[in-house]
Amino acid sequence: MQKENIQAIIVNIGDELLIGQVVNTNATVIAEALHKTNIQVKEVVTIGDDKNAILSLLQRVWEECHIVFITGGLGTTNDDITKACICEFFNSQLQERPEVLKHIEHLRKERGLCLSDSVRTQAMLPECCQVISNKHGLAPGMWIEKQNKLLLATPGVPSELMGMLEEICQKIKQKYQTWHKIDKHFKLMGISESLLSDKLQDFERQLPTYIKLAYLPKMGIVNLRLSGSHADKDLLEKEMNFFADKLKEATQDYTFAFEDTDLALLLGRLLREKGYTMATAESCTGGLIASQITAFAGASDYFKGSIVAYSNETKYNVLHVDKQVLETQGAVSQEVVCLMAKNVLKLLNVDFSVAVSGIAGPSGGTPQKPVGTVWIAVANKNECTAQCFHFGTHRKTVTERTTQMALYMLYRLIINQ
Amino acid sequence: MQKENIQAIIVNIGDELLIGQVVNTNATVIAEALHKTNIQVKEVVTIGDDKNAILSLLQRVWEECHIVFITGGLGTTNDDITKACICEFFNSQLQERPEVLKHIEHLRKERGLCLSDSVRTQAMLPECCQVISNKHGLAPGMWIEKQNKLLLATPGVPSELMGMLEEICQKIKQKYQTWHKIDKHFKLMGISESLLSDKLQDFERQLPTYIKLAYLPKMGIVNLRLSGSHADKDLLEKEMNFFADKLKEATQDYTFAFEDTDLALLLGRLLREKGYTMATAESCTGGLIASQITAFAGASDYFKGSIVAYSNETKYNVLHVDKQVLETQGAVSQEVVCLMAKNVLKLLNVDFSVAVSGIAGPSGGTPQKPVGTVWIAVANKNECTAQCFHFGTHRKTVTERTTQMALYMLYRLIINQ
Repeated sequence: MQKENIQAIIVNIGDELLIGQVVNTNATVIAEALHKTNIQVKEVVTIGDDKNAILSLLQRVWEECHIVFITGGLGTTNDDITKACICEFFNSQLQERPEVLKHIEHLRKERGLCLSDSVRTQAMLPECCQVISNKHGLAPGMWIEKQNKLLLATPGVPSELMGMLEEICQKIKQKYQTWHKIDKHFKLMGISESLLSDKLQDFERQLPTYIKLAYLPKMGIVNLRLSGSHADKDLLEKEMNFFADKLKEATQDYTFAFEDTDLALLLGRLLREKGYTMATAESCTGGLIASQITAFAGASDYFKGSIVAYSNETKYNVLHVDKQVLETQGAVSQEVVCLMAKNVLKLLNVDFSVAVSGIAGPSGGTPQKPVGTVWIAVANKNECTAQCFHFGTHRKTVTERTTQMALYMLYRLIINQ
Repeated sequence: MQKENIQAIIVNIGDELLIGQVVNTNATVIAEALHKTNIQVKEVVTIGDDKNAILSLLQRVWEECHIVFITGGLGTTNDDITKACICEFFNSQLQERPEVLKHIEHLRKERGLCLSDSVRTQAMLPECCQVISNKHGLAPGMWIEKQNKLLLATPGVPSELMGMLEEICQKIKQKYQTWHKIDKHFKLMGISESLLSDKLQDFERQLPTYIKLAYLPKMGIVNLRLSGSHADKDLLEKEMNFFADKLKEATQDYTFAFEDTDLALLLGRLLREKGYTMATAESCTGGLIASQITAFAGASDYFKGSIVAYSNETKYNVLHVDKQVLETQGAVSQEVVCLMAKNVLKLLNVDFSVAVSGIAGPSGGTPQKPVGTVWIAVANKNECTAQCFHFGTHRKTVTERTTQMALYMLYRLIINQ
């Protein structure tokens, strides 16, 4: 079979998505799964629970791609109309599926509930569809093939959708011979997106049409992704390696990792590998650095804790920062942040520490130390180094950029040991 | 002017959204802001950085609604092509805007950076647009009116977009005479969404077509929103008051607030009003409670800090939890969590404290204390009360539900003083 660039459009149905009530994480989860299955998502559309809107959208997207992936509107309430729309679109009828009914009965019994009429309708599916079973809920998913095209429909409940994605992607892989696809990731710190794009202009001009470079800046880190997609696997591999090497060389002063991984996870992995422990002392970030480190399972292997010293009183009562230094230098100073890092190292008896003190805003700035001024210190038993940054005027950006920079400085300190 | 039901379509541009790398929170933020401005969002579309795709999409959506709201593609890299598309669509030219250039120069100087050619292009805007200034970054937003229609374009960086939304919504309000709209919010704790919807079935049946009830469950809290929209203001007010009173009565055992506000902010406001201070002692949440409290400006008025004791060693070295109690009862116990709450109260010299200790998983569970078991204690100088919860097996859900419940228990303790 000829290899093809298979394209998909994701359709999310639900009024709640159009009034800003719910973040559309389903689209992200599906897009990621399809991307990994070598399917190119060309569009994501969200519309409300409106029959005419759904039908005219179906008409359009069915023409424009190979795979239409619908979520939502499969519940038992009045505004759940996806099945009716699918029947009308494919000129199909609902029929009761015994295997689905059995699953629903089993699930209801398990939860000590009876089988109401409205729940029973969940076993009614368009004749034209194959069933994708729902591990975590009542409404099954639907797989409808027509020539080389495919329509998929799943519930909008994220856990139910996620429980079906693996089976769906397996079936897609069997159905389509997709293009080969290679992604290479670069994580950079210390250069802005705009400077980097100036620097990489020539590089980008040399790229063939089937290899693309994407810039994904996030809180001071620029993630670069080189993605290639081609029918010829050998050619693609050769060209991807060639351009990845070029990119590696061009960005070597800034690239600190070659994978698409959270910095807190990279740092944690490094600490675990080396058998080191760490702690944080936080002022302006208010516990954000600690919470990002502990977001990952197994953090207790290397993370012992944090002192969040949000007041000067806490800085000297708990962190034992010298009161006079605090008064003469101010909380946002090299001296104080170094004392915070050194003291938390001793107090929590760890190998490495990071401390931050800054002005997150919107108030609290002075002409000498405007909002966004942040001191960050990293320490081990032998040394402590501190640096001053200016992270702008937006409170959330200041705390998030501080967090990323603190993690990065600690990562560098340990790597360079 | 005749009042109208003004409809909008949101267009988010960016390859990163189509491969599942980034969750499209911008669409949610814009949809919420437009909803509050009485604008009905009828569709959200995401497409990649592809000129032809953008242009044909623009052609379609411009016909189908009053307001097209575009984000993304306004940076300085090659894949940022929104401005070129807008120029082509409106048959307009780019021109340098002196006031934008001045802002960019100022911003670059503040950050100690020079003005490169690519940065300078940010001051080039389509002739046909009015400038929406960017408080938090370089690329300005664009406001383009044509007859009764409106095209908006903002950067895709969330903080930059958010910094522009208020100005944009103000201008929209001035331009359009929209339908009247009333939202009423209810915040409930202690009842599940499904039980609540059973309880409110009759209530929902009585609602007229122009009043809708939405359920927004989030980490143990159910937010209810009653929204009405109608051309007749007096009728709408009367009916909304009538049904809000009914809903208030039906949910009085569970409702603790009547506004759509973050619990950390409600708690903070209460503490400030009463002149109280607080601190946290956190084990399984790893600083998440502290970071949610300090996410809001002015938190230093009432929040003095936190001890994140992620290891037993930190629990007795810093929090002075009795070693024997820790060994005999285990870290996840009523005794330990109460000692954590009482000790952090003294150590940080505050009026109120909350402490949590639990098993966030995926490992660390035992038959007696399975993953998801969490003890939470709240304390003031006179009393300490603790409660045990089971928050499921999903790590992120466990820490987030713990955080919400900790904030809620502290809120109740202070309210009931």
